[in-house]
Amino acid sequence: MGHLAKDKGKLVARVRRLQGQLEAVARSLDEDAPCGDTLQLVASVRGALNGLTVELIEEHVRNHVVDPEHEADPERAKGAADLLAVVRTYMK
Amino acid sequence: MGHLAKDKGKLVARVRRLQGQLEAVARSLDEDAPCGDTLQLVASVRGALNGLTVELIEEHVRNHVVDPEHEADPERAKGAADLLAVVRTYMK
Amino acid sequence: MGHLAKDKGKLVARVRRLQGQLEAVARSLDEDAPCGDTLQLVASVRGALNGLTVELIEEHVRNHVVDPEHEADPERAKGAADLLAVVRTYMK
Amino acid sequence: MGHLAKDKGKLVARVRRLQGQLEAVARSLDEDAPCGDTLQLVASVRGALNGLTVELIEEHVRNHVVDPEHEADPERAKGAADLLAVVRTYMK
Repeated sequence: MGHLAKDKGKLVARVRRLQGQLEAVARSLDEDAPCGDTLQLVASVRGALNGLTVELIEEHVRNHVVDPEHEADPERAKGAADLLAVVRTYMK
Repeated sequence: MGHLAKDKGKLVARVRRLQGQLEAVARSLDEDAPCGDTLQLVASVRGALNGLTVELIEEHVRNHVVDPEHEADPERAKGAADLLAVVRTYMK
Repeated sequence: MGHLAKDKGKLVARVRRLQGQLEAVARSLDEDAPCGDTLQLVASVRGALNGLTVELIEEHVRNHVVDPEHEADPERAKGAADLLAVVRTYMK
Repeated sequence: MGHLAKDKGKLVARVRRLQGQLEAVARSLDEDAPCGDTLQLVASVRGALNGLTVELIEEHVRNHVVDPEHEADPERAKGAADLLAVVRTYMK
């Protein structure tokens, strides 16, 4: 992900937040919180992980395949834009 | 999850492993590893999170709804066993 | 699903709608529609299938495990209600 | 999906099989089969739908973005190949 310099900090920060959310899950288990609460915490980790995944896939497509905003070939640009829309639909 | 005493340690250990897997994702980002490698690491976090989710749901069903192995009512016991099989199918 | 008489018609109707959505996917392929459009149709089938899955799991829990609204044991009733909330969160 | 001529028949055949699997779900509901059996049928529809989704995304990438096997730019070819590997991992 050599191209990431600009966004690297943001992505790593997202990973740290995920680790923090997991800390809350560990505490919830340690403190014998109701299962439903612990499971809702785990569900939010899952949502955040999906969000990180979409962002990483998007970074990869833009930097190593086709960047819809900077691609000279209009058909490829449209194809890449459609692809990113589909990835967001499926991974949200 | 007051019933968890026996298993609490195992569940918390799984959460710690997940945090460790995320540490590898952060390092992969920091070291500008190829996107594909980072995305495969995130996919393995996702798999581990699904595994934790199934285990927590199973704990919840056994301890707060119906435990197939200790339920007096045979229809409820079968219903709970079928439910756990479905949860595993969908969450793997 | 012997208990389904009342709801069977509604569930079968949902399955028929899913078959209809797939007919639209087949037509989209036949008519060489843009991939993005076909993929969005398939995404909506996926969403509808998840909705059907949640409803079937809910039916199963209520009729073969514990029905939160008719369960005498308050702890089991709460456990089943929490379970259904978790299933909706994870399967939406 | 104008490029699909060659594969169109195969993809439409997959959609027909999915419709057939849903017919089995409808029959299972109609015949009051055990919930667990119906839910396992729905799970197999879900698996088949994921398979169709991966194939459609792959078709789209190869024909409208970058085809790893026919791309002149080696970095783009590698990027597209990595992307397809990630899509298979996440959608299986």
